[in-house]
Amino acid sequence: MTSTVDAPTTTSTSPARALVCRGCGTEFPLAAQHACYECFGPLEVAYDTEALAKVTREQIEAGPQNIWRYAALLPAGQDAATRVTLDPGMTPLVSAPALAAEIGLRAPLWVKDDSANPTHSFKDRVVSVALTAARELGFTRFACASTGNLANSVAAHAARAGVPSITFIPSDLEQGKIITTAVYGGELVAIEGSYDDVNRLCGELVETDEFEDTAFVNVNVRPFYAEGSKTLGYEVAEQLGWRIPAQVVIPMASGELLTKIDKAFSELVEIGLVEAPEGGWTVFGAQSAGCNPIATALHDDRDTIVPVKPTGIAKSLNIGDPAAGGYAIEAVKRTGGWMDYAGDDEIREGIRLLARTTGVFAETAGGTTVAVLKKLVESGKLDPEKETVVYNTGEGLKTIDAVAGLVGPTHTIKPSLRGAREAGLLG
Amino acid sequence: MTSTVDAPTTTSTSPARALVCRGCGTEFPLAAQHACYECFGPLEVAYDTEALAKVTREQIEAGPQNIWRYAALLPAGQDAATRVTLDPGMTPLVSAPALAAEIGLRAPLWVKDDSANPTHSFKDRVVSVALTAARELGFTRFACASTGNLANSVAAHAARAGVPSITFIPSDLEQGKIITTAVYGGELVAIEGSYDDVNRLCGELVETDEFEDTAFVNVNVRPFYAEGSKTLGYEVAEQLGWRIPAQVVIPMASGELLTKIDKAFSELVEIGLVEAPEGGWTVFGAQSAGCNPIATALHDDRDTIVPVKPTGIAKSLNIGDPAAGGYAIEAVKRTGGWMDYAGDDEIREGIRLLARTTGVFAETAGGTTVAVLKKLVESGKLDPEKETVVYNTGEGLKTIDAVAGLVGPTHTIKPSLRGAREAGLLG
Repeated sequence: MTSTVDAPTTTSTSPARALVCRGCGTEFPLAAQHACYECFGPLEVAYDTEALAKVTREQIEAGPQNIWRYAALLPAGQDAATRVTLDPGMTPLVSAPALAAEIGLRAPLWVKDDSANPTHSFKDRVVSVALTAARELGFTRFACASTGNLANSVAAHAARAGVPSITFIPSDLEQGKIITTAVYGGELVAIEGSYDDVNRLCGELVETDEFEDTAFVNVNVRPFYAEGSKTLGYEVAEQLGWRIPAQVVIPMASGELLTKIDKAFSELVEIGLVEAPEGGWTVFGAQSAGCNPIATALHDDRDTIVPVKPTGIAKSLNIGDPAAGGYAIEAVKRTGGWMDYAGDDEIREGIRLLARTTGVFAETAGGTTVAVLKKLVESGKLDPEKETVVYNTGEGLKTIDAVAGLVGPTHTIKPSLRGAREAGLLG
Repeated sequence: MTSTVDAPTTTSTSPARALVCRGCGTEFPLAAQHACYECFGPLEVAYDTEALAKVTREQIEAGPQNIWRYAALLPAGQDAATRVTLDPGMTPLVSAPALAAEIGLRAPLWVKDDSANPTHSFKDRVVSVALTAARELGFTRFACASTGNLANSVAAHAARAGVPSITFIPSDLEQGKIITTAVYGGELVAIEGSYDDVNRLCGELVETDEFEDTAFVNVNVRPFYAEGSKTLGYEVAEQLGWRIPAQVVIPMASGELLTKIDKAFSELVEIGLVEAPEGGWTVFGAQSAGCNPIATALHDDRDTIVPVKPTGIAKSLNIGDPAAGGYAIEAVKRTGGWMDYAGDDEIREGIRLLARTTGVFAETAGGTTVAVLKKLVESGKLDPEKETVVYNTGEGLKTIDAVAGLVGPTHTIKPSLRGAREAGLLG
């Protein structure tokens, strides 16, 4: 379960202390290991709480305009010279009054728009943290199992850093996501199967001698990778003037993003950077109808996630066997939230609704999250009187086929005033 | 030549003083006018030089992380509440040592990556300035003649602001650019003709009663629009630590972007924010072989631009009758620079070269500029010993067809170790 490259542990200035099993609590040294030797549970980074408690708002605000302003809260990258990064983060928090009005929200609504990252998805955050840790750990090749955005980001990071990459994707991905990986020149392996097949194969490859030098960002260095998502919580709090919003709506693939945003809010409160909002915060999760194993487990009040075979257009969310699904359910239940899912037509309409009310063009994952936000208001699960942040994690240009049949020129005319008049443009 | 909406002039805190004819020097009040009543020459914003001279580095550095940090050097938007904006700008200046090595540059090379803007091209800069001025001038509908990126930006800005939009494009544009406009919900008029046909029609429409309320960003409010491009000069200087680079390579469509970056450098020196580099700066222009009227005029040592019928894949540069071509030639000659052009295959190779050496995925315009940079080094026109900045103005995802036939998965395999072994991934 671990790669055994001769590697230093992370630098002494990192606040990370150990890897700890989310199942049984056993601790391990900081290394390329992602599952517990005792119970096979997933590992997570544990921090020196005294080190975290020393971090101040002023220190963060004086930092760069990217995720590394939070380096003192992350497991790697404290030394700028060691980073493998496109410097993602500090993406816009867009005020969305027209969207709020249209779906019946009467409190401030914000869109955290992570399509503004360098390769246009939130994956740049997790990849920057994972690859920075990976290089510190001595790895010399970068890899991932991906539904598309992650491969885009790993390949681009590797190109910038001048390190070889090999990325693995399902062969039926959107053209935009395939080309955006391939153009960076690394190896790109298309696998005739689902993402879950891709992930399984990467779990096998990582154990082979041929891949001993290879960091799979979401396999053998996954604990570091996952921590990068915390920055999506930190930034929202900072951008709101060091406040945690009452409600957040987050897309779910593995479920990890949701758990890490919730973890980020908890950390900010624990270390005294932010006061918890009155009544706490409430976390909502969004899936597509074609891949809803986490939401249906919650709806059915089951403890276990039953894997599904994903279908539908929200391919970046199509993880049928979601590793962090149980932890996502725990976070949603603990905070009084809920999960729901949207069908392909609702997802397409979610993309259009977000675009025409905010100027943000989201990929299918963002359309899913907006569609679920709308449903949560309609069903009364989300309080329309409370401030809400909805996360857009990706870029519409990568999934244009989703709306290509629905939108296009409103008029096609000859290049003349007569043409304009015949089309009704002159009254 | 002017729209006659009852309109206030821009606010008193703007440093803009008048519109001045670039041909005969006649001055006009700040209004929606773009051509001289005396000689039909193009108008440009003139500033109160005393107001500009009061601007300090500290004032700029304390501003927001977008173009509005330079509001005191722009004609509109001094009052944040009046802005019509997606807050573009402060895009990455990416160090590109691997690209420099590959093309034989021995001095620092930087890529100014404007694909990081909200709608992923430099057009967000000019649109934010133009529409902010347009709203101050009383216009209630936003429009443009576009090769694609401009329509994306106008439609997105209008959606965010809740203002109706009507954008005009050639009907044969790339799918990515059509969808990215249409999704925002405004009117989108596809014209069966070239960009020059589109532009001509918009020049006629702006004179009609039905379009009296309509600001065409690059027609009737063009002087304000063009000023937005200055921010691409300001930012590079600030990001280099308040230095002007020795050499810049800039794509040319109308030629306006090149003239405004040169103007920005001149302004920074004049108002004392930056010292001119020893030997000054040198400006280089890039076109495609399919649309090279400015470069060929320079090569033939002609004063006049002979319009061409554009062809080729660099559609965002396909302006056959470039309005600012003569001014671009003047700037290039004055600074000791040169212009060149690249064919479609060279453009495709430019996209791939930039991607694999920097992690930046550019559209065809960026591929053109990188290809021309390479040529300029090879021909000795560009000094390989001097610091150089190359501008990428757009996003590869919008023109993926340019490289879709050239790059793709390097392997396609069954989801098993056996499949990986058969593909040679296990030695």
